[in-house]
Amino acid sequence: MNLPDHVTIKEVGPRDGLQNEAKEIPTENKVTWINLLSETGLSSIEISSFVHPKWIPQLKDAAQVAASIERKPALTYAALVPNQKGLEAALTADVDEVAVFMSASETHNLKNINKTIDETFPVLQNVVQTAKREGKQVRGYVSTVFECPYDGKTSQDQVLRVSDRLLRMGIDELSMGDTLGTADPKQVDEALVYWKKHLSLENMAMHFHNTRGMALANIVVSMQHGITTFDASLGGLGGCPYADGASGNLATDDLVHMLHKMGIHTGIDEAALQKAADYMQRVLGKPLPSHGMQILNKERV
Amino acid sequence: MNLPDHVTIKEVGPRDGLQNEAKEIPTENKVTWINLLSETGLSSIEISSFVHPKWIPQLKDAAQVAASIERKPALTYAALVPNQKGLEAALTADVDEVAVFMSASETHNLKNINKTIDETFPVLQNVVQTAKREGKQVRGYVSTVFECPYDGKTSQDQVLRVSDRLLRMGIDELSMGDTLGTADPKQVDEALVYWKKHLSLENMAMHFHNTRGMALANIVVSMQHGITTFDASLGGLGGCPYADGASGNLATDDLVHMLHKMGIHTGIDEAALQKAADYMQRVLGKPLPSHGMQILNKERV
Repeated sequence: MNLPDHVTIKEVGPRDGLQNEAKEIPTENKVTWINLLSETGLSSIEISSFVHPKWIPQLKDAAQVAASIERKPALTYAALVPNQKGLEAALTADVDEVAVFMSASETHNLKNINKTIDETFPVLQNVVQTAKREGKQVRGYVSTVFECPYDGKTSQDQVLRVSDRLLRMGIDELSMGDTLGTADPKQVDEALVYWKKHLSLENMAMHFHNTRGMALANIVVSMQHGITTFDASLGGLGGCPYADGASGNLATDDLVHMLHKMGIHTGIDEAALQKAADYMQRVLGKPLPSHGMQILNKERV
Repeated sequence: MNLPDHVTIKEVGPRDGLQNEAKEIPTENKVTWINLLSETGLSSIEISSFVHPKWIPQLKDAAQVAASIERKPALTYAALVPNQKGLEAALTADVDEVAVFMSASETHNLKNINKTIDETFPVLQNVVQTAKREGKQVRGYVSTVFECPYDGKTSQDQVLRVSDRLLRMGIDELSMGDTLGTADPKQVDEALVYWKKHLSLENMAMHFHNTRGMALANIVVSMQHGITTFDASLGGLGGCPYADGASGNLATDDLVHMLHKMGIHTGIDEAALQKAADYMQRVLGKPLPSHGMQILNKERV
C-alpha cells in the first residue's frame, strides 16, 4: 500500500459544522471551542464565514469570533469569504487565510451563490487578487465535484475547468468537495486518475462527507494517489445547508484515529481532540455523531 | 483499481445481530424478518445459533425459527453450532450450513467457549466430520484475527495455525472476524498479503465490525486482494457480546449501497433490503444505526 508518512487535517467544524446547526451557539462558546481546537496540534482551523447573516445567521458573529480567540503563531486561522465585501471583513479581522468557494455544477452554484459559474469567476478573481496582495493564503473550495443534488453526476471536464480557473487566479490550495457524500471509492479513484493528468495533486485537499459511510474508504483511496490534505469536522458536526440529505462531514476524530492506527502522523493529540469534541457536545446538548464520540458516550452510560 | 464483478454477502443479522439485543424478539417476528430477508436476493442467511440458552437466551428459539421460516431453494440457511449437541439440533432442524467458531487469541477463546484453543480443536473436528458426513456445508469463524480484547494484538502466526487447522478439518469456508472492529486498512492489507502466502483466499470471507467507521475502507482493501465474500448485518444490528465497546456489525444495506455504486453486483435488491430493515426497526422500536436507515429515518421526520 502506497501511503504517506504525514497527513495534514484542516478542521472545518467551526464553519462547516456550526453553519448547519439549527441551534444558535453563543459567541463565547465558539471562542472557547476554537481555543480548545488550537490546543490539539491541528495546523489549520476554519473559524467562521464572512457571508451575509441573511444566508448563514449561525455565523453572523464571525468578526467577534476572530477578534476573541487566542491565536497560536504556528496555526493558520481561516475564514470563508463569498465576495469582496466578505473579504474586507475578513481582512479587518486579520485571518491568516481566506477561502473562496464555488460549485463544479451549474445549478448548485446558482442556488448556493446566486450566480452562474461564469458570473462567479470575475467575482472570485477580484477576491483572490486582493487577498494575495494583502499577503493572505487563499483556498478555493470546489463543491459538488462528484455529484450535484440538482444536476446529477458532475462532468469531470467541468471540475477541471473550474479548478484550473481557480488555480490560475492564484489560489494556494484547491479543496475538492464531495458535497453530498455520495462519492464511492471507485469514483474517487477514477477522478484522481483523471485529475492527475491535468492538475497537480500537490496543492489539492479532499473534502468528504460521510453521508453513506464511505468517507474513510475514500480517504484511503485518495492517499494511495498521493493526496495528503483532508478537511474534517470534529465529532462529525455539519453538512451542506443547500443539499438535502447531505448530513455529516467526515469526523476529524475518526479520521485521526484511523490515520494514527495506520502509523500515519498528523501532529494531533487524540485526547485533546476528544476534550474539544466533548465540550461542543455539551454546548449543543446532543450527542455528536462520530464513532469516537458514540463510543465515549456509550462508555459513560 | 482491482475490483471484482460480483460480491457475495452473507447476512448474519438474525444471529450476530439479534444475539446482542437486550430486548427479546418474539419468534414470529424473527420468522417474518428472515422471510423478508429471503426476498431480497441474498444467497445466504445465518438464521440463529444452536448454543445453550444459558449463554445466548435471545436465540433459544433456534429450532422453532428453523422450522417456521419459508425456505427458498436457491438460498443457504445457516446456523451457528458450538459443539456436537448443537450440531445435532441443527441437523434435526435441517439447516443447509453449520458454522463452527473459535478465536485466534487464547483468552478470547477461553472466555467465549470455555476451552483453550488446543482443547477446542478436537471438539470442532468431530462437529465438522459429522456435519460433512450428513452432507452439510461447514463454515469456520475465526474471531479476533486482528485484536483481542484481552490479549491485545493477535499474532498472525496464531491466525494461520487456527485457520489451517479448520481447513484441514474440511470446512468449506473461513470467515475471518475483526471482532472488535479495530482493524485499519493498512493492517488488513498486511494481513492479507501474509495470509495469501500460506492460505488460499478463495474460500475466505471477511467479517468486519464498524466500531470506528473503518469497515467499508477495509472491504475495499480486501476486494483489492481478491476477497469476494463478506459478512454483514442488516441495519448494522449487533456486535460481540464478549467484547466491550465492539458495537455494530458492518451494515448490509451500507455495504450493498457502496458495492452497487461501484458497479459491483451482489444480486440484492436495495428496496427489498430497506423493507426488511424497516420491519426489524419497528419490531425493535428503535432506529437502526446504518447510514441507510439514518437517512430513511431523517427523510420521514
